[in-house]
Amino acid sequence: MKINLNADLGESFGAYQMGNDPLLLKTVKSANVACGFHGGDAWVMTQTVEMALPEKVSIGAHPAFPDLQGFGRRPMHLSALELKAMILYQVGALDGIARAAGTRVSHVKPHGALNNMACENASLATVVAEAIREYDRGMILLAPVLSELAKAGTVADLPVALEVFSDRTYTDAGQLVPRSQPGAVLHDSEACVDHVLRMFEQGGIVSINGKYLPTPFHSVCVHGDNVHAAETAEKVRQGLEAVGYTIVALPEIDL
Amino acid sequence: MKINLNADLGESFGAYQMGNDPLLLKTVKSANVACGFHGGDAWVMTQTVEMALPEKVSIGAHPAFPDLQGFGRRPMHLSALELKAMILYQVGALDGIARAAGTRVSHVKPHGALNNMACENASLATVVAEAIREYDRGMILLAPVLSELAKAGTVADLPVALEVFSDRTYTDAGQLVPRSQPGAVLHDSEACVDHVLRMFEQGGIVSINGKYLPTPFHSVCVHGDNVHAAETAEKVRQGLEAVGYTIVALPEIDL
Amino acid sequence: MKINLNADLGESFGAYQMGNDPLLLKTVKSANVACGFHGGDAWVMTQTVEMALPEKVSIGAHPAFPDLQGFGRRPMHLSALELKAMILYQVGALDGIARAAGTRVSHVKPHGALNNMACENASLATVVAEAIREYDRGMILLAPVLSELAKAGTVADLPVALEVFSDRTYTDAGQLVPRSQPGAVLHDSEACVDHVLRMFEQGGIVSINGKYLPTPFHSVCVHGDNVHAAETAEKVRQGLEAVGYTIVALPEIDL
Amino acid sequence: MKINLNADLGESFGAYQMGNDPLLLKTVKSANVACGFHGGDAWVMTQTVEMALPEKVSIGAHPAFPDLQGFGRRPMHLSALELKAMILYQVGALDGIARAAGTRVSHVKPHGALNNMACENASLATVVAEAIREYDRGMILLAPVLSELAKAGTVADLPVALEVFSDRTYTDAGQLVPRSQPGAVLHDSEACVDHVLRMFEQGGIVSINGKYLPTPFHSVCVHGDNVHAAETAEKVRQGLEAVGYTIVALPEIDL
Repeated sequence: MKINLNADLGESFGAYQMGNDPLLLKTVKSANVACGFHGGDAWVMTQTVEMALPEKVSIGAHPAFPDLQGFGRRPMHLSALELKAMILYQVGALDGIARAAGTRVSHVKPHGALNNMACENASLATVVAEAIREYDRGMILLAPVLSELAKAGTVADLPVALEVFSDRTYTDAGQLVPRSQPGAVLHDSEACVDHVLRMFEQGGIVSINGKYLPTPFHSVCVHGDNVHAAETAEKVRQGLEAVGYTIVALPEIDL
Repeated sequence: MKINLNADLGESFGAYQMGNDPLLLKTVKSANVACGFHGGDAWVMTQTVEMALPEKVSIGAHPAFPDLQGFGRRPMHLSALELKAMILYQVGALDGIARAAGTRVSHVKPHGALNNMACENASLATVVAEAIREYDRGMILLAPVLSELAKAGTVADLPVALEVFSDRTYTDAGQLVPRSQPGAVLHDSEACVDHVLRMFEQGGIVSINGKYLPTPFHSVCVHGDNVHAAETAEKVRQGLEAVGYTIVALPEIDL
Repeated sequence: MKINLNADLGESFGAYQMGNDPLLLKTVKSANVACGFHGGDAWVMTQTVEMALPEKVSIGAHPAFPDLQGFGRRPMHLSALELKAMILYQVGALDGIARAAGTRVSHVKPHGALNNMACENASLATVVAEAIREYDRGMILLAPVLSELAKAGTVADLPVALEVFSDRTYTDAGQLVPRSQPGAVLHDSEACVDHVLRMFEQGGIVSINGKYLPTPFHSVCVHGDNVHAAETAEKVRQGLEAVGYTIVALPEIDL
Repeated sequence: MKINLNADLGESFGAYQMGNDPLLLKTVKSANVACGFHGGDAWVMTQTVEMALPEKVSIGAHPAFPDLQGFGRRPMHLSALELKAMILYQVGALDGIARAAGTRVSHVKPHGALNNMACENASLATVVAEAIREYDRGMILLAPVLSELAKAGTVADLPVALEVFSDRTYTDAGQLVPRSQPGAVLHDSEACVDHVLRMFEQGGIVSINGKYLPTPFHSVCVHGDNVHAAETAEKVRQGLEAVGYTIVALPEIDL
């Protein structure tokens, strides 16, 4: 029983620190590394890759809309061609840094508003999937369960790793409860662990109203905005190991 | 007798047009493509690569300081580690776009102030050369003749292509006459052609004072800031072909 | 009979040239000056103000979404508080440059996607109007006729100058025909002049289907994306002067 | 006996937090507010001004080189005209936000590399001083004691407030000991307080070698890079009040 844990990393920028990357790198096995559009810069990316290597954490690109000041969370509307080019630019940039460090980018997970929009909008999802396929047909797309993005990845014949979130609740339709609504985010570490273990027991997600939506999944996103992200991540890991799971990097998962 | 012609291309940005890329792509055989730091953006880079492919023009990365507003012409002082990371980022970004288009970046030529500083400063030159070597030991460094940058490329065991400029005159020490001085730039197409042919006849550069500095060279940079750049480039090409040279892409040159 | 002609100016950026500002400044009497978010930079803004002064062209701020690469034409979704702050930032920046040159910003006209969205969305329009009022209650809002933006300006008790476009056609509802539709843009100078004169004769706009929508207006926007913008602008000016109008700066219009 | 305490504030950017502004605003009486070029953004600037107002902390602009990723600490070389325009842009932007909040920018203090370079380079110092004078002849220039910047401010007939640093030591020539040298920065709060009180007792600065350099000064910069900045600031304040000083905003100092 193998499962992956992933987190968003490398989101510092210049003099600005964000997150607790060294701690999270002790827990997760795949890192979604910011590529300079919503966070991260060339030197932060380099340091993140170099920290991930000895921890055997696999490297993923975390491309975003060009919106550093909004941290990639603002919906933007770009042409399909521009967006595809921007994704290739970001994936290539991180892969350049990874190659220089003796490793490679092995997955892609869109960030923020780009991810949210690609989960709902099939044509945007197709743009993302095609950008990845044009770059490398063997590149893993890390996408939320039950999303248009996951579907588009399958259509594009990419290896698709499905993820669930440890600290976010789901609607009856299987989408994340919007952050603006009560109960959207689980703030307590124990609640996160329970939430994750329930999804494993059920073999799918359980909505905020108790509705069961069966789906395979390969990865748990343990990154949260709260200050206890690293601590929660470690507890989720321990909870999964306690029930017999081995935490592995994404390329070690059978997709 | 094979020689390369190179030019800076893909320097448009968003709604801003610069240069006459379609015309230059009919003349040169290697393109130094802006990577988004001093000019260019992901979509411009994509279009440039796609235009270069059918013309069999080889693709080079043209990394720069992060200074779009100054077009990469302002001297900046970055740490060696940051600068190396920025070069890898830019080369990787363009290579990502190139790979998606079914080709590859085959050379690197620094842009503007970064190039000027790396031609004079041995430690900066070493940073540039090491960034390229870390990315790919087979990547060609395109560097001015008699420069610290060319030396650093040789020390780093990179294939180094040496270039002369068609529209710039040289000091007795072999450096470009600074633009601020009279006679630095040749504005007349015929003068450029004569200048280039003289360098070929002499097997080296002839300074503005007539001093002869022997040096091999493999490429002529035909890009100029003047509006007649494409026309001048074509005349230089015709002049070289008339005396028996074949214009080839950089990877076809024996280095 | 006084009327204003306005145009978007100062949209160059660094080494990138855009538009034909010196020519347009001979024709229009009010300039909407880019403030660095979609185009323009501090030095371009300074030069634009200094060119406008001797021509007695009044200075307006042309604030935009933070999207240089998309030239401010991409819809973005920002919080009201962030957007208001960005407008104040841009208006203040231009006014700082104007004060140093011995003049002042006298009007504000939003740019691109921000303008389009504020013309349709009443709450966004209110944000724009309130930003201007907070800066200076006497500042003129230059807004399209029949728009939510114009209404919001009136509600905010700002002096509102209503504008019509010389090269754009209107729907039966009084909005601009989207550029994606045929007939949206008038490409011929004579057609532009006829279009403008018809609006003056009718005292309102005439839609693309011939529907008459009465509305006062105080200014004609003569800036177009086509290469003949300056020529068309001059013909519109001559056409208006021929029927007895005097072209004046916005602050000279009774609002 | 009136003295000012100043600190750099408003250096957060988008989702990136920096500094402990609410605490520092309880201690200092003048804030040097980042203007978006090295840190800060329109919304951060707005919040900073709104937090400063009820604390009766005077607002200063803290203009910088355009280098967010380098936090304005990288030496850059811009033309005098471009730099002057950039300073006016930044001062105007903050003043726009301040006016909307019912207050005004009352001083300017350059940031980082721009400040360092203007302290040593008389022509750069003149550019800074002239930009401020062109904006407003009554605007206070806050400049380090014994600097070229202070001299240029006096020549430009600006009100010049001289500052000393609470946590930095001085060379025998009166310049800050470079951070790269041992002893440059005082890390201990008590050491900072002693350092400041000694300068008050002596009526000048005492170099790291014990050399006494008499100079008037009007303000103490209490901002430091260390995590205890707010605590140190408060101790310096208490130390000064204990020996009879009243801490006032810059406009209340006789210059």
